[in-house]
Amino acid sequence: MARVFNFAAGPSMLPQPVLERIHAEFYDYHGTGISPLEMGHRTPYFAEIADECEHRFRRLLSIPDDYAVLYMPGGATLQYSAIPLNFLGSKHTAAYIDTGHWSKRAIAEARKYADVHVFSGLDATSWQLSGDEAYLHFVDNETIDGIEFDAIPEVGLPLVCDMSSNILTRPFDVSRFALVYAGAQKNLGIPGLGVVIVRRDMLGKAHPLTPKMCDYSVFDATGSMQNTAPTFVWYVLNEMLRYVEDQGGTEAMARAAKAKSVMLYEAIDASSFYLNSVDRRYRSRINIPFQLADEHFNDLFLQQAQVAGLAYLKGHRALGGMRASIYNAMPQVGVEALVSFMQAFENEVNV
Amino acid sequence: MARVFNFAAGPSMLPQPVLERIHAEFYDYHGTGISPLEMGHRTPYFAEIADECEHRFRRLLSIPDDYAVLYMPGGATLQYSAIPLNFLGSKHTAAYIDTGHWSKRAIAEARKYADVHVFSGLDATSWQLSGDEAYLHFVDNETIDGIEFDAIPEVGLPLVCDMSSNILTRPFDVSRFALVYAGAQKNLGIPGLGVVIVRRDMLGKAHPLTPKMCDYSVFDATGSMQNTAPTFVWYVLNEMLRYVEDQGGTEAMARAAKAKSVMLYEAIDASSFYLNSVDRRYRSRINIPFQLADEHFNDLFLQQAQVAGLAYLKGHRALGGMRASIYNAMPQVGVEALVSFMQAFENEVNV
Repeated sequence: MARVFNFAAGPSMLPQPVLERIHAEFYDYHGTGISPLEMGHRTPYFAEIADECEHRFRRLLSIPDDYAVLYMPGGATLQYSAIPLNFLGSKHTAAYIDTGHWSKRAIAEARKYADVHVFSGLDATSWQLSGDEAYLHFVDNETIDGIEFDAIPEVGLPLVCDMSSNILTRPFDVSRFALVYAGAQKNLGIPGLGVVIVRRDMLGKAHPLTPKMCDYSVFDATGSMQNTAPTFVWYVLNEMLRYVEDQGGTEAMARAAKAKSVMLYEAIDASSFYLNSVDRRYRSRINIPFQLADEHFNDLFLQQAQVAGLAYLKGHRALGGMRASIYNAMPQVGVEALVSFMQAFENEVNV
Repeated sequence: MARVFNFAAGPSMLPQPVLERIHAEFYDYHGTGISPLEMGHRTPYFAEIADECEHRFRRLLSIPDDYAVLYMPGGATLQYSAIPLNFLGSKHTAAYIDTGHWSKRAIAEARKYADVHVFSGLDATSWQLSGDEAYLHFVDNETIDGIEFDAIPEVGLPLVCDMSSNILTRPFDVSRFALVYAGAQKNLGIPGLGVVIVRRDMLGKAHPLTPKMCDYSVFDATGSMQNTAPTFVWYVLNEMLRYVEDQGGTEAMARAAKAKSVMLYEAIDASSFYLNSVDRRYRSRINIPFQLADEHFNDLFLQQAQVAGLAYLKGHRALGGMRASIYNAMPQVGVEALVSFMQAFENEVNV
């Protein structure tokens, strides 16, 4: 069939120009006679890709020189273990903010290693920190719950942040963080990599039982090539960064994310047929869950949406209903098509 | 340029039919309107791929029902940590056979977790096992050193084996092993996955600090989908297994590996211009290092080989000289071209 608008939460759609570039290079990357699928991690052409990728990241996010950018396996889940293993040092406690599903996953894993102080809600003034926690962890955007921080919290602890779903969708001040991490499969390409941006003075105190593949110092010392790097996934990541630069960078992505999400929220709020109950201050610009007031129409909605070329709108099983994930790759016309469909569907069934 | 014969040790070349299939499905996987790069891990079509992959593995290697097949991130290196973390249980020692570079890497990591008893050489009768080691680890084929076991060692311990470079190149009796593992980037596709075949009665005794992404029980319980699986890498793996089945399975691959390696060793041995000093009993069928008797010709050899479409023959920096890696994807004509080139080169310079 024709290509669809893919609203999946991740792995998610890739920008058309990224797909076209990979397709064009598929049998012969830059005259090497090698497919990007076959690229060796110790080759001069891959060294160039890794170098380009690094410079693009640093330009796009204004990453200070005292921060390392690491490319690690295992997506965000590996980081749930790596963070306490690398950051606790001689401390035994860490603070975690619980704002939803992914927060809870991170907390459950951290409890293997630390006494975890858990706080709820996105208002930092309500958190009762003891002050001796090794760090504070939060999830900037909860993919399932559709909740996003509107500002970087001010606390007196090293900040550790999961930006898997909203990295590169707006500028942010890297220097406010000890560590930022993101799985690749939403805004950074395809699954198989976790990107970690870490201030180097936080390194060097890993637990003695830390596996090498979880040890930030090892990745920093080896340029993330202690072992065979996932070259193709990394190459796709570099193409995603090229795309964001070509679009005008994170400021442009922030304008686009705002325009797309406002359009969809306005359509939801203008109708009593669709509902989103998240506090407006914390509504995600990226993952927008919504319910049909009459859930009997759920299946019909999803069927007709699929026919209209609007795919993977089914909400996470934890919430039910619908969810539209609108990462950087989703064009404005995709959201326009969704809004038009929603209005037509409401008119059709709501007679 | 034209496609080359790629003799890299890994990431390595893919079979032409595998590349062609991926290319044909690139913009629309089976009428979904989704690229294989965009496949969601919770979709019905990916469930089919994972299921196909599992069945193909079980058919190709006659894997018994009491073994799990796990798909993990981080390649073989993650396993260096995962094996002791999962298998030591209440024991404190493990036996490791040192046959070269990758053995040493595995041993160095195991020392974080265990008192490691190290033995050298491929002759099991020379190993002085205490008998209370939790397991015995060996590398079936040393990619750098060009050394391969000619039989499964007989010892009274659970066997753990790194088959990264020779899995699917010959049949073997899975039931002789507690665990077999392999990084994907040689015979199983592209980097970003480690495949683990493990007997289930070995599970359930992981160290309490084992990261979830290193815990075999977690991968077994979730069908290797506790988190976002590397869908594209897994899809390529399934295509590699399809290719091996289409070629006639592991028996056919073993015949091909034998024919290709014999042809190259005969060319090396027939000439005093080229040297391979590995004990003939243990010569690898897969990774064939060779030296030029006069090393001054090394650079010229590599330059002219590249021009002839024979790429990545440079030996590992630990050994110098040349290395030809001839995985399942390397066709017989590729090795024929290499042998012809070697003879022509010798004739040209050796006057």
